Amino acid sequence: MVKSVAVFSPATVANVGAGFDMMGFAIDGLGDRMILRTNASEKISIKLITGDFGKISRIPAENTAGVALIHFMKHLDIRQGVELEIHKLSPVGSGLGSSASSAAAAVFGLNELLGNPVGDKLGLIPFALEGEKLASGCIHADNIAPAMLGGMLVVRSANPVDLIEIPVPDELCTVLVHPDLEILTKTARNLVPSQVSLNDTITQMANVAGFIMAMVNNDMLLLSRSFQDLLAEPYRAPLITGYSQVKQAALDNGAIGCSISGSGPTVFAFVTGIQRAEKIAAAMVLAFCKAGVTAHSYLSPINRTGTYSS
Amino acid sequence: MVKSVAVFSPATVANVGAGFDMMGFAIDGLGDRMILRTNASEKISIKLITGDFGKISRIPAENTAGVALIHFMKHLDIRQGVELEIHKLSPVGSGLGSSASSAAAAVFGLNELLGNPVGDKLGLIPFALEGEKLASGCIHADNIAPAMLGGMLVVRSANPVDLIEIPVPDELCTVLVHPDLEILTKTARNLVPSQVSLNDTITQMANVAGFIMAMVNNDMLLLSRSFQDLLAEPYRAPLITGYSQVKQAALDNGAIGCSISGSGPTVFAFVTGIQRAEKIAAAMVLAFCKAGVTAHSYLSPINRTGTYSS
Repeated sequence: MVKSVAVFSPATVANVGAGFDMMGFAIDGLGDRMILRTNASEKISIKLITGDFGKISRIPAENTAGVALIHFMKHLDIRQGVELEIHKLSPVGSGLGSSASSAAAAVFGLNELLGNPVGDKLGLIPFALEGEKLASGCIHADNIAPAMLGGMLVVRSANPVDLIEIPVPDELCTVLVHPDLEILTKTARNLVPSQVSLNDTITQMANVAGFIMAMVNNDMLLLSRSFQDLLAEPYRAPLITGYSQVKQAALDNGAIGCSISGSGPTVFAFVTGIQRAEKIAAAMVLAFCKAGVTAHSYLSPINRTGTYSS
Repeated sequence: MVKSVAVFSPATVANVGAGFDMMGFAIDGLGDRMILRTNASEKISIKLITGDFGKISRIPAENTAGVALIHFMKHLDIRQGVELEIHKLSPVGSGLGSSASSAAAAVFGLNELLGNPVGDKLGLIPFALEGEKLASGCIHADNIAPAMLGGMLVVRSANPVDLIEIPVPDELCTVLVHPDLEILTKTARNLVPSQVSLNDTITQMANVAGFIMAMVNNDMLLLSRSFQDLLAEPYRAPLITGYSQVKQAALDNGAIGCSISGSGPTVFAFVTGIQRAEKIAAAMVLAFCKAGVTAHSYLSPINRTGTYSS
């Protein structure tokens, strides 16, 4: 009997302010929609990918969803034939965790098809991480974890997986602005210095602390003061034409903070109030436009659901 | 008319686990008791210091309390004659913020004598920091801030002062063990590398996040996992004879975490439950003893009062 499941896994923002490589959150509406169907072949096959402009490999061993499934089946010691349809509802290579959404959706979907042998989403993360590793070259859970679980999460450790949920005030909203620029994750990663001064380390730690307590206490002034990154933003900003003007436009119009989503080029801002969010989004797009770059904006609350079957 | 005030300012623990140079808390019972008396001399004089074994200068310009008062009076544009009696109720040079207690007590006391011109304790901190600077050579608020205000605080910035209160579960108790060893703050500081690898920086940030959310959620298992320091402890531990055995004794007996208080040599452990705390204190003292070092233990909750007039 052929069984099938439809899954949605949200896009995610990593490198949240001071939280470089250790904090991420999920957003609403954007992400991967994936349909998984069992068959008798004992093989993984990717039948269809839409929305990727041909950028993503259809070969399972070269595709984050495929690699995640290979590792998951190896762990379960099964060879389940499964056919994937992947619909990319967020831009690929934009810094919104597209590969993480694919890996999380695939593992979650197969677990559903098999009658939930793992028991909870947390237990699925290590297999999704193996898929993500294909894209980033190393184990990073700051996109995978919020894609799977939703909300805002700190990754205290990826192996073993140790995640910490950060409370998010209801009124907090995200403005995402995606410019038509291409940045390779590898290029962006190589720009970040491998050594950090002790002073910068301490400042970054203090801003992480400030960010978290601001979320806990719903203190938007503290959140704004703490919304600083010394580790990656200064080095990656030059890759994004117009970045400093776009950031300034967001802050001038009342954004709590503004930074680069993942390794970019998407820029995100934290805002309270939907009207202010719309104004900020327009100002950011205009600033990109003035710098000669076409850009699209998107508003979203923090997604609290993560990956689900629909 | 001669006016006088008696002030107590608590001892403090800085470098709390992952919170190197940016987090500290106050403890009960230990600290500085100071009596300040006005006179007509227009000069600061230190009449008496007890409990310091002659280690602290009686010359105001060479004494943290004196220097703090000089800066405070300069700010107020007054020349108030004041005479100090300083009673050190915590060991000098032990890593328990002795100089911070003196600076905080002096500034708080003079502000009281003058009828509270500054209005709140927060406003007194910059002057106390000037006193502390004499001892440490630079502006660090991780002892001064909890000495003045009590509780557990993150210093997001010392200039301007930006402090963040971290909630502390009621049942959390501190074991302090002070070995008869001498460590110069300067020596301890020079041992900490001025560059940190990016990986260690991220791990430390994640542990700061874990520590704080553990406090917020009263999650002692997370607190234990997050109680790690990669920045200072590995480099300073060799200064404390028997340190690794003492730490192991604390953990083997159920301590949540154990690290070096300030720049040492005092070692502190977090514990829940007074009986367990007594057992851990005894085990730590015994471990020092086996390493040939005499040590004294002290149990304290987190002090929530800070500096007060008594």
